Amino acid sequence: MSRKRRDWKAEAKRLKKKLAKVKTRLAGAAPATPAKAGSAVSPLAPAAFPALPVIAGVAFATAAAGVRYSGRTDVMLARLAPGTALAGVFTRSATRSAAVLDCQAKLKGNPDSAAGAAIVVNSGNANAFTGAAGAQSVAAVAAAAASALDLPAERVLTSSTGVIGEPLPHDRIADAMATLADGLDPAGIAGAARAIMTTDTFPKGAAAEIEAEGGPIRIAGIVKGSGMIAPDMATMLGYVFTDATIAPKALQKMLDRLTATTFNAITVDSDTSTSDSVIVAATGQGPAAPITDLRGKTAKAFEAALGAVMRDLAHQVVRDGEGATKFVEVRVTGAADAADAHRVAMAIANSPLVKTAIAGEDANWGRIVMAVGKSGGRADRDRLSIRFGDILVAENGQRAAGYSEDEVSAYMTRQELLIGVDLGIGRASRSVWTCDLTHGYIDINADYRS
Amino acid sequence: MSRKRRDWKAEAKRLKKKLAKVKTRLAGAAPATPAKAGSAVSPLAPAAFPALPVIAGVAFATAAAGVRYSGRTDVMLARLAPGTALAGVFTRSATRSAAVLDCQAKLKGNPDSAAGAAIVVNSGNANAFTGAAGAQSVAAVAAAAASALDLPAERVLTSSTGVIGEPLPHDRIADAMATLADGLDPAGIAGAARAIMTTDTFPKGAAAEIEAEGGPIRIAGIVKGSGMIAPDMATMLGYVFTDATIAPKALQKMLDRLTATTFNAITVDSDTSTSDSVIVAATGQGPAAPITDLRGKTAKAFEAALGAVMRDLAHQVVRDGEGATKFVEVRVTGAADAADAHRVAMAIANSPLVKTAIAGEDANWGRIVMAVGKSGGRADRDRLSIRFGDILVAENGQRAAGYSEDEVSAYMTRQELLIGVDLGIGRASRSVWTCDLTHGYIDINADYRS
Repeated sequence: MSRKRRDWKAEAKRLKKKLAKVKTRLAGAAPATPAKAGSAVSPLAPAAFPALPVIAGVAFATAAAGVRYSGRTDVMLARLAPGTALAGVFTRSATRSAAVLDCQAKLKGNPDSAAGAAIVVNSGNANAFTGAAGAQSVAAVAAAAASALDLPAERVLTSSTGVIGEPLPHDRIADAMATLADGLDPAGIAGAARAIMTTDTFPKGAAAEIEAEGGPIRIAGIVKGSGMIAPDMATMLGYVFTDATIAPKALQKMLDRLTATTFNAITVDSDTSTSDSVIVAATGQGPAAPITDLRGKTAKAFEAALGAVMRDLAHQVVRDGEGATKFVEVRVTGAADAADAHRVAMAIANSPLVKTAIAGEDANWGRIVMAVGKSGGRADRDRLSIRFGDILVAENGQRAAGYSEDEVSAYMTRQELLIGVDLGIGRASRSVWTCDLTHGYIDINADYRS
Repeated sequence: MSRKRRDWKAEAKRLKKKLAKVKTRLAGAAPATPAKAGSAVSPLAPAAFPALPVIAGVAFATAAAGVRYSGRTDVMLARLAPGTALAGVFTRSATRSAAVLDCQAKLKGNPDSAAGAAIVVNSGNANAFTGAAGAQSVAAVAAAAASALDLPAERVLTSSTGVIGEPLPHDRIADAMATLADGLDPAGIAGAARAIMTTDTFPKGAAAEIEAEGGPIRIAGIVKGSGMIAPDMATMLGYVFTDATIAPKALQKMLDRLTATTFNAITVDSDTSTSDSVIVAATGQGPAAPITDLRGKTAKAFEAALGAVMRDLAHQVVRDGEGATKFVEVRVTGAADAADAHRVAMAIANSPLVKTAIAGEDANWGRIVMAVGKSGGRADRDRLSIRFGDILVAENGQRAAGYSEDEVSAYMTRQELLIGVDLGIGRASRSVWTCDLTHGYIDINADYRS
């Protein structure tokens, strides 16, 4: 019974602390933007936004068009040089947004890359489940950008992120287009990273550079996701730019391959957005020779660098996961094939019981056994082993012989955790990344809507 | 900005209220059992445990064996008359418990039903992921019951629920067996319902009776699930007893059919236990004539009554869902087939974003659109319609013309909600039942482990 009383005391202490925090916030100034209500910068955020290189052939502009928020930028325009190769991956949702459908159609059409191209993104409204009006809004935004930049509308890709089901006030975006076109700046990528945020608590960017014949190839990318206070779902948008010269089909192939182990290997809450989009633009404006031999050294180095940038951006989304206090890698090895490894890893990473145990710094490996069991992946209870970091906690279908609850509990207090599961069946492996499930998640998604 | 301050004030008020509650609890007596730490009876609980009829051929006993808890019963024994037909459905987890594997083997073996039978259930320890020792524990418990009741061990089914990965102290259960056998009581089902609880906040039972040739057929059932404070996962165990005379194969067929729309149509948190089991025992001791014509009137009436008892029990599990404050039916109609209807309904019922919106009494239908989209079920955005209760909120791929946020918000304050989704594609329909995702869930699963 005394154990129970201790629990209550801890709970009271926790509440008092939280209460004090709330009172401080009440007394202090209101947060800078409505979108950030209640969410300080994630404890998992990087120290600062990275210094991103200028990518030849890309220029950015942002505007505060008042789509939904006020007092902050909410539209970004990226102009891409003639000859830019475009590739994209998008949500597979059956209810995907008008902008996603439009991007898919345009990339499939693969119009003449000799023309320039543009990307227009607004935050605050997802333009999803908006019927025929949704497609009209996309067309209006694309037409405005095409006209301002003297491009065919088929070369303007758009994304929208925010509330679902409300008509997009596209006139506000179109009205800002002339100003945007006038303000294009090759060094403007950091501002672009801010303009596409919804309830993100920090802007996200990553870069890489490789040496190639003729000179370096540079890659810079930005991404938004996945906080939420306004009534919409976690939405992931990513844009990666490079000065490499590469054909659209080859670029698309690399993007598809890399997505599986980067953006498709993260989860905050298992809910898939109607708007998820990642677009890669290769301007061909750098000094390096064109990448034509896809098995060559440069192609491999480029794919590795592109993958590193995508992985970095994907991890930053998890680090800004709603209410997150822990960054967790779930690494599954010994699987029959990669699909099984991914399935088992995702079952663990999405389990509310695993995620709440992590939040509670609880070495609850029984819940990992449970998640492996329910995953549908091929597993044999008696070959399974589980590690927290380097600590073996279970093997051969039971608790490990030298198991020490104290040792594992100490490990669980870390901010970055590795959960290792070896299925003992085959040789395939996969990692996915997730965060914990905390009171902060409930606060953001249940308490804060007005 | 003022909206934000209001939010914080509300949050502070909530915390103060919670803090006051915590302080009251701190000052007051410790709760009756460790298993119930922190959880008052669910607000969704029925007013009282129902009066369950005595089923001829079944007798119950319970004991406080000290498996894990102290000061409460934690073992139940049910003795079943010679001739009892048994049927069972179990978790499909790849890491299922030793008791589940043993039950499946015994029911497959289908030993002579002329012998009597018994069911032994312990709470506090799941005997899952316990290696070879797990199977030995099951054998020891079954042998003790077989000896005390003069039955073949093949006719003793066992279940265990509670912590995963810790060896089951089966001696404590075996030691209690003689006392249990001496205390068998045909009217003891309510005590049995209490003995199998782990962190349930109320015992769960349901009954039905139908008229048949020769006299009535009676059905009574109990179930446990799904609270959690000790480090284990939500686990569902159900036992249904009837005095009907029916062959095991026919009973199994009915059970399989009914499980799909009852126990397999509920979800609290999407996490599947290693121990889920439902066992139906038909003693053949009632006055009614045997059910042999499975297309006859009595068979149909019996199956309907059995289904009603199973549905009632399943709903009670949801009503005791961890942290639940709302009971929600998700009804999908117009699906291409029943599997698709179930898939879409489960995607909605398991979505953390839908469940937190319900907790916040937020008419956030955009999240339902999202869940339909990610489900993998066949859906056409432009044929989809969504209702909260009788209120149409969206149709034809957009918000309904007469949509009133106030009207829907008022509906969301109810304790029992119906979310209706018509896919507009085919004629199949399915319902599933779930609860909301609240701070209580996080409290139970992250904060309370010592």
